[in-house]
Amino acid sequence: MHVKIIILTETELRQCIAITPVVIDAIEAGFSSLSQEHVTMPPIMRIDFPEVNGEVDVKSAAVEGLDGFAIKVSSGFFDNSKLGLPSLSGMMTLFSAQTGVPQAVLLDNGYLTDIRTGAAGAVAARHLSRENVETVGVIGAGAQARYQMMALKQVREFKRVLIYSLDGMEAYVEEMPGVLGVEVLAMDDVEAVVRESDIVVTSTPSKQPYLKAEWLHPGLHITSMGADAEGKQELYAECLGRADLLVCDRRSQSFRLGEFHHGLEAGILKSQSDAVELGEVTSGQESGRTSDEQITICDLTGTGMQDTVIATLAYQKAMSKGMGLEIES
Amino acid sequence: MHVKIIILTETELRQCIAITPVVIDAIEAGFSSLSQEHVTMPPIMRIDFPEVNGEVDVKSAAVEGLDGFAIKVSSGFFDNSKLGLPSLSGMMTLFSAQTGVPQAVLLDNGYLTDIRTGAAGAVAARHLSRENVETVGVIGAGAQARYQMMALKQVREFKRVLIYSLDGMEAYVEEMPGVLGVEVLAMDDVEAVVRESDIVVTSTPSKQPYLKAEWLHPGLHITSMGADAEGKQELYAECLGRADLLVCDRRSQSFRLGEFHHGLEAGILKSQSDAVELGEVTSGQESGRTSDEQITICDLTGTGMQDTVIATLAYQKAMSKGMGLEIES
Repeated sequence: MHVKIIILTETELRQCIAITPVVIDAIEAGFSSLSQEHVTMPPIMRIDFPEVNGEVDVKSAAVEGLDGFAIKVSSGFFDNSKLGLPSLSGMMTLFSAQTGVPQAVLLDNGYLTDIRTGAAGAVAARHLSRENVETVGVIGAGAQARYQMMALKQVREFKRVLIYSLDGMEAYVEEMPGVLGVEVLAMDDVEAVVRESDIVVTSTPSKQPYLKAEWLHPGLHITSMGADAEGKQELYAECLGRADLLVCDRRSQSFRLGEFHHGLEAGILKSQSDAVELGEVTSGQESGRTSDEQITICDLTGTGMQDTVIATLAYQKAMSKGMGLEIES
Repeated sequence: MHVKIIILTETELRQCIAITPVVIDAIEAGFSSLSQEHVTMPPIMRIDFPEVNGEVDVKSAAVEGLDGFAIKVSSGFFDNSKLGLPSLSGMMTLFSAQTGVPQAVLLDNGYLTDIRTGAAGAVAARHLSRENVETVGVIGAGAQARYQMMALKQVREFKRVLIYSLDGMEAYVEEMPGVLGVEVLAMDDVEAVVRESDIVVTSTPSKQPYLKAEWLHPGLHITSMGADAEGKQELYAECLGRADLLVCDRRSQSFRLGEFHHGLEAGILKSQSDAVELGEVTSGQESGRTSDEQITICDLTGTGMQDTVIATLAYQKAMSKGMGLEIES
């Protein structure tokens, strides 16, 4: 058998895909498909490497109407810094949804995951935050703390960013005003960020909750990105009890390994029907925010649907540009 | 981040790996590790594409002592023949088990799966068939029907092969005597193959059982390769009741999607403790065949352990030969 497969590097993929309205809209359409059962999405495959503090997730989904499906491997090996290597890496492979034949290897080093995760945050804010926001907050100063604000800027005209992070805050404050075109202020603690913001995005790998319910105020929207495994948590479970609307990307994930799982354990949530899915909101099956006073929380664990959508977009763009190395095998 | 990744084609991989004693021994050692809990193996990820009669499996495993772990994607799209394409395809990716960083893309088009599956059959026969065998039978005439016999030849000195297959039998009978160095005879039906053989390997994608219990005879060993999904079955469930020893590669797979799952459904098997795992036999925790008169059945569904073992071997061999295309990304 002879297969022609395209190899795309991170450098090439960065020239094909960024956080744009097209990407945000494609991810939003994917969420709608997911909640209308036009997506076949298997449970996340997970492999742990406890001796080296490592974890690997494999995600995938078949999305009706898309030519391909992605298999995305993402790894976090948290002792890598001792070796001078980044903790996170990964890649995607893309296959034909018509024939199962491999089409492309996307050596993105996690870049496409960053983009599709940022885009999901924008989709959440578009439907769940107040329309008029002045101040947005971000907890964490990693790559995703950057992409979240870049994506948010495309759906909400905020005037300033407040940040708190245990590390990396100085570089963020220096770099991001130029990227976002708004002022970026380092704050003394999480409380100050939350109390003064209309939208807060939490983007840390924390294993201990740090955001308290008493800081929530009318009109606030929180998107919580960090928790994607049983042992991770950013919000105290009491936050979930104070919210007027709870949304997640996928109930079967959020109630098993995201923030809502801690809500169930604490007895604050009773069942999965205490939350709606983002796709139910984007497709109009459920309401998003209905008043400026509501407190809304969206928990994003990351879905294979997003990986298939972004990989398909990147591949189409690369093909239209004639990019990539073709290997015959 | 910059990662150097090696791309290996099927042509290169065929120069690195074949069914050899080294490969069979490595797969056997892998089975022993699996049953001694030195392997972390997640459930198979499965995605169905019912509109095009397609199915995709993703397998993986972390094996203690190996430098890497594989993510293997295999697809079967059974309407592909209408398009002039083979039904089966796939590829593997290999990652460092120390850092999670991608190491290699193995564009094997399913070749490595064929090899590791053949090797597992040889491991089963080494421990479960009689030592002295004259005649072996094979049902099916596809690639795996070939690899099974090539692998078996390395552990048992049989004198002839009997084959029955709904199609492809003529080509098999023409081609395989030269490969195996023994006579290969086409038979009129499955019954004739089973009644006259000391070992029978079933290697078909049948969704209907076709091998009957009344044909089993003292001393027979059957390895059943085909069933790897809920709807597939080669042996009538009554066969399992007639066997003196039931072995499988992985209880959690065989009793869910292999032959033993049908045994449970039919009430012929009571629980997973009715079977032992191949690795329990290879590691000496459980007995294999203990007399020439026993009837033994081994059900192989295919494990991510085998994929990690074969991908690691192939990669090491390719590196020692200086093969592969290095891509920086």
